[in-house]
Amino acid sequence: MAQAEDIVRIGLLGAGNVGAQVARTLVEERELISARVGTPVKLIGVAVRDPEAPRDWKIPGELLTTDAEALVDEADLIVELIGGYEPAGALIERALRRGAAVVTGNKALLATRGAELDAIAAETGAVLRYEASVGGAIPILRPIEESLSGDRITKVMGIVNGTTNYILDQMDTTGAAFGDALAEAQKLGYAEADPTADVEGHDAAAKAAILGTLAFHAPFTLDEVYCEGISQVTADDIEAAAASGYVIKLLAIAEKHDDGAVLRVHPTLLPRTHPLASVRGAFNAVFVVAENAGELMFYGQGAGGKPTSSAIMGDVVATARRLRASVAETPTVPAGAHLPALPIERATTQYYIDMQVADREGVIAEIAQVLADHHVSIESMRQPGSVSVEGEVESGESLGAQVQIVTHLALEKDLDATVKQLKSLDVVKSVTSVLRVEVEK
Amino acid sequence: MAQAEDIVRIGLLGAGNVGAQVARTLVEERELISARVGTPVKLIGVAVRDPEAPRDWKIPGELLTTDAEALVDEADLIVELIGGYEPAGALIERALRRGAAVVTGNKALLATRGAELDAIAAETGAVLRYEASVGGAIPILRPIEESLSGDRITKVMGIVNGTTNYILDQMDTTGAAFGDALAEAQKLGYAEADPTADVEGHDAAAKAAILGTLAFHAPFTLDEVYCEGISQVTADDIEAAAASGYVIKLLAIAEKHDDGAVLRVHPTLLPRTHPLASVRGAFNAVFVVAENAGELMFYGQGAGGKPTSSAIMGDVVATARRLRASVAETPTVPAGAHLPALPIERATTQYYIDMQVADREGVIAEIAQVLADHHVSIESMRQPGSVSVEGEVESGESLGAQVQIVTHLALEKDLDATVKQLKSLDVVKSVTSVLRVEVEK
Repeated sequence: MAQAEDIVRIGLLGAGNVGAQVARTLVEERELISARVGTPVKLIGVAVRDPEAPRDWKIPGELLTTDAEALVDEADLIVELIGGYEPAGALIERALRRGAAVVTGNKALLATRGAELDAIAAETGAVLRYEASVGGAIPILRPIEESLSGDRITKVMGIVNGTTNYILDQMDTTGAAFGDALAEAQKLGYAEADPTADVEGHDAAAKAAILGTLAFHAPFTLDEVYCEGISQVTADDIEAAAASGYVIKLLAIAEKHDDGAVLRVHPTLLPRTHPLASVRGAFNAVFVVAENAGELMFYGQGAGGKPTSSAIMGDVVATARRLRASVAETPTVPAGAHLPALPIERATTQYYIDMQVADREGVIAEIAQVLADHHVSIESMRQPGSVSVEGEVESGESLGAQVQIVTHLALEKDLDATVKQLKSLDVVKSVTSVLRVEVEK
Repeated sequence: MAQAEDIVRIGLLGAGNVGAQVARTLVEERELISARVGTPVKLIGVAVRDPEAPRDWKIPGELLTTDAEALVDEADLIVELIGGYEPAGALIERALRRGAAVVTGNKALLATRGAELDAIAAETGAVLRYEASVGGAIPILRPIEESLSGDRITKVMGIVNGTTNYILDQMDTTGAAFGDALAEAQKLGYAEADPTADVEGHDAAAKAAILGTLAFHAPFTLDEVYCEGISQVTADDIEAAAASGYVIKLLAIAEKHDDGAVLRVHPTLLPRTHPLASVRGAFNAVFVVAENAGELMFYGQGAGGKPTSSAIMGDVVATARRLRASVAETPTVPAGAHLPALPIERATTQYYIDMQVADREGVIAEIAQVLADHHVSIESMRQPGSVSVEGEVESGESLGAQVQIVTHLALEKDLDATVKQLKSLDVVKSVTSVLRVEVEK
C-alpha cells in the first residue's frame, strides 16, 4: 500500500511506557527513521483510551484519537502496544485482514493466537513482526528466524523475566526471603502490585512458547508450556545451592526431541560459571544451542520504555523497508555516505600507567602535577610496595618503587603528552606499561 | 533470476574448512534448506584449485570444477569462501555485475573494497551478505543492520579474534609469557604458523572496519583503523592488571563522535565484572551500546568450520528467500506445521534433591538404591554435617542429617517416581527441595 503515495503511514495503538517512547522517536527522529527506511514515514495517529492521561512524552494533541478502528483502517503499518488479549487481538486482526503490516510486543496474544494471526497475515500478504515480545531490546527473534535459518536449533534457554531475575538475584546476594525480595522489587517498580504473572512464570511461559515456535518451525502455545514459578523458592534453597556452586534462575526452556519438543519454565540451578549465571538484576539473556553454530548467547535489557522501543523501532524500519516491495533494498550504508575516521588521538578512554619511580618523598605529588597539567585526572593509584628494580640501579640512589595509576576518561593526545613528560621526570625511572582501560561502555 | 526456473542454483567457491561444511549441508540437508527457503535450492558446483586435495567432507566428484568463472556465470547465488583479495575479489565482482547474489565471509576484502562492492550490488540490484566475516557463528551484522535499524548505535566493542583471546586467556590463567602462550596456541591449531595477522591485530582491525561501517551507516576501511597487537603485552602486565581486578583483552572498538568515528584495535584492560571479561578461550563476543537499547552483548563461537558454516548458511537461506522477490515471504513457521508439545515428564535434566534423613548407618545406601532402581544416577552427594531438625523431632529418635544430591541427566518421570519412593522411606524425614539443574546446555 505504501508504494502508491511513496510514504509509509504509521498508526500507533497505545501510549504507555513503550508507546510514548515510540511516538517520541517517530516524531522527533522522523528524518532519521525515514532515511533508514529509504522512504518517508509519518506517524498519522495515536489511539488511546484517555487523551488527557499524563504520559512520559507529551504527544501532540492532533495525533491523539480514541477511534482505534479508524486509525487501523487508514495506516500502512500499525504498531500495537495496548497489550493483553482484547481489544488488541481484534485490532491486529483487522489490520492484517486489510493487508496492513503489524508490529507488536504482545507476548500473551502471540503465545495464544500467534499461529492464527500468522495465517491471516500469510493469506493477505501482510507482515507481522514481534521482536519486542521476548527479551526487550535484545535482538533474538530475528537472529533465530534469519541468521540461524540454515542451522538446526536444538535448545533455547533464557532468562526472559526481569522481575523474577531481580527477586532471585536479591535473595542470592542479600540472603533475603522471597516475600521480602518481592516487596523490595514492588517498592522499586520492578514488580507489579499483582505480581502473579511474573512470579508464577506465566510471562516467561508465553515467551517460551514464542521462542519454541520460531526455533523449531512449528506452532506452540502458552498452554503447552509446563510452568512453575519462584514463589516456592526459599532462602535455604538459594543458600544450599550457593554452597554447591550454583545459582538459582527462573529459566524458560524449549528443547527439541526427535518426536516433539518440551517447553518448560521453572526455577533452575545453574553452575556459577554458566554464561547465564552472571545475568544480574533486571537484565535478560537467551542462550541458544544449534547443531553447527554451537552455543550462542544474546544479552541485554529485558524491559523498560526505551529498550523495548528500540526493538519496536527496529521492526518498524525493517517492515517499512519491505512495504516498498518493488523498490531495491535500502542499503545500511546509503550511497555516498561519509563519516570521517578520526585519528586515535581523538579516542577517549581510561588509561593504566605502570611506572618505576624513585623511592623518595614528593614523587607522587610531582607525578600528579604532570597529569593535572594535561587535564588527566586520577581514578585510582596503587603503590604495590617498594620493589627492587632489576638492572639499572644507579649507584648512590635508593631502590625504586612501583606506581600504578588508573586515570579517569582522558583524550589519547593528552595521555601521550602526559606520558612523554612523565618519562622526562628525574624521579621516573621508567614507564613500564601504558594500557587502555574500558570500564563501562 | 531464480524465479524463471523456480530453483535457486548455488555455486560454491573454495572448499577448505568452512567450504567443505557448507557443501555438506547443501548436499546432505538439501531438503531442509529448500524448505527453509520456500523453494528448491541446488548446489550446482564447487570451484577448487585442486580437485584431488583431501577435504573434511568428500565432495561428490561431479560437483568439483577448476573453472570458477564459469560457475560464477551460471549460478543464482555464489558462496565465496576462497578468502584473501584475489581471485576472490574479481569473482565476487563478476557475480554482482551479472546480478547474482553473493554470500561471503571475506573480512579482508570487505574491509578494503566493501563500499565498492556494495555500490556494484546496488547498481545491479544484487544482494551481498557477509555475516560470517565477523564473529563466526554469532549473529551480529544482521542484528545491527535490521534489529537496531531504528536506534542510534554509539559504540561497538568486541572480542573478535579467537587466537589472541586464547593467548591472553592462557597468559592470564597460567602466568605464561606471550611467546610460550603463542607456541602453545600454534601447537593446538589455534594460531597459524605465521601468526602476524592475528597477533598484530590486523584481523581484528578488518572486523572493526566492518562493524563500524554497519553500526554508523558510513563506509570505513581497514587503513582507517588504529591498530596495536598483543605481542608487547607481558606476563607482568597481566599480573599487575589482575592484582587491580582487571583482565587484558584485545578489543576491536568503533565509537561514534559528533564529527566522525574512532576505530581502534589494542590490548585493553577490562574490569573482571565486565560482560566481555569472562569470554574465554577461542570464543568471541561483541558488545553494542545504542541510545535506546542500552547495552547488548552477542556471544558465541568465533571460528571453526561448523560454526562459521552456520552463519554462511543463514545468509544463504535469507538471501535465497529474497531471490524469489515476487513471491510472498517464507514464513518461519510453514502453514500447517505441527510438532507435538511433549509433557514435562519427557524433559531430561539434572536434579538437585535436598533431604532431611535419619542420622543412622545405611541411610545413604538405602537412598542410593532407590535412585538406582529408577535409573537415576548420582553425580555428587553432600552431607553438610548433622543439623538439628527444628520442630518435629520424634522422641527417642536421633537428630536428623541433611543430604544433598545432584543427579546425572534423568527423565522427569523417573525423578518423580524416585522422589515419591524416597518420601515413603522410613529413613527420610522430608524431601525439602527438588530443583532442576542445567549444567551445560
